[in-house]
Amino acid sequence: MVAIKRIDHMAILVEDIESALQFWRDALGLTVAHVEDVPDQDSIVAFLPVGDSEIELVKPTGTATGVARFLKKRGPGFHHVCLEVDDIKDCIRQLSEKGIRLINPEPVLGTGGKRIAFIHPESAHGVLVELYELTQEESEIRLARARSLADRALAQGQIVAAGVLGFLRGLRESGNGSSQAGSAPS
Amino acid sequence: MVAIKRIDHMAILVEDIESALQFWRDALGLTVAHVEDVPDQDSIVAFLPVGDSEIELVKPTGTATGVARFLKKRGPGFHHVCLEVDDIKDCIRQLSEKGIRLINPEPVLGTGGKRIAFIHPESAHGVLVELYELTQEESEIRLARARSLADRALAQGQIVAAGVLGFLRGLRESGNGSSQAGSAPS
Repeated sequence: MVAIKRIDHMAILVEDIESALQFWRDALGLTVAHVEDVPDQDSIVAFLPVGDSEIELVKPTGTATGVARFLKKRGPGFHHVCLEVDDIKDCIRQLSEKGIRLINPEPVLGTGGKRIAFIHPESAHGVLVELYELTQEESEIRLARARSLADRALAQGQIVAAGVLGFLRGLRESGNGSSQAGSAPS
Repeated sequence: MVAIKRIDHMAILVEDIESALQFWRDALGLTVAHVEDVPDQDSIVAFLPVGDSEIELVKPTGTATGVARFLKKRGPGFHHVCLEVDDIKDCIRQLSEKGIRLINPEPVLGTGGKRIAFIHPESAHGVLVELYELTQEESEIRLARARSLADRALAQGQIVAAGVLGFLRGLRESGNGSSQAGSAPS
């Protein structure tokens, strides 16, 4: 039997990270635990923990990706829910045997170094569902990705939302792998 | 400061509870902890716990409600996310002061006897957000509502999904308030 552990995160597509943070951070009082860029999705993402889960804000930075097309077609709002499982390969195998259609028939590397696979919304009645297995290397990859964004944002003058600049500065100055980003839940 | 405790549930609109359960229960292995009808929304809802949260499947039974119109317009899929707060009246007051638009400027009674209020998606960048405060009477109301559905479904022959019949039968036969439904997380 597939064993789902918890809702890891709920991803929300936004036009602009900073204005979305005015709601999720400034009005609701959540804090930004992690920011990173996702090169293969041309996106910047921000994670805000809530209970045992996180809200993930996703801002597409290109126009050709799935998330950019989704945002253009349906507007800002819910994109997918991510569920944590113990053994993603076994989970995928069991779901395939039950006729569930997977977008990723093999696990791939997602945000923060997670081992993930997406279920096709056709098999989940209109909901895009991501499955995720915690990996040992996850915190290191998460930190490296956040540092990469910090370097570009702060050293090369790339424009990012003002609201995440403080987070990125702290990350760049910490330099020892012990920052909040490295230990944030994912 | 508003203090959000956790994601209480994520609500998903479905055309049919039974076929949605083939994915969420039979494929993913979640269990149905509670079923009830929501008279003022002409809906049947099923809750499936996952970690510290629940997936709520919502099937509109009428055509004139908000959820029925939403389903017709956007198809099955994500409807809203519900966040638990400590003090919903104080939370509403603080959000109003920050210019956040509330659908319910005063708390109302939601599924399972919860004290709830919805934030307008305009203020949450396209996401319908429900706030919820745990109340003492919640488990009693939840049980009464489930029993009401059980009575109509089993005694009066109302058609409900086969997948929830076992749950409703157990509830009707238990009769002592100690069933799973009464103690299910909400």
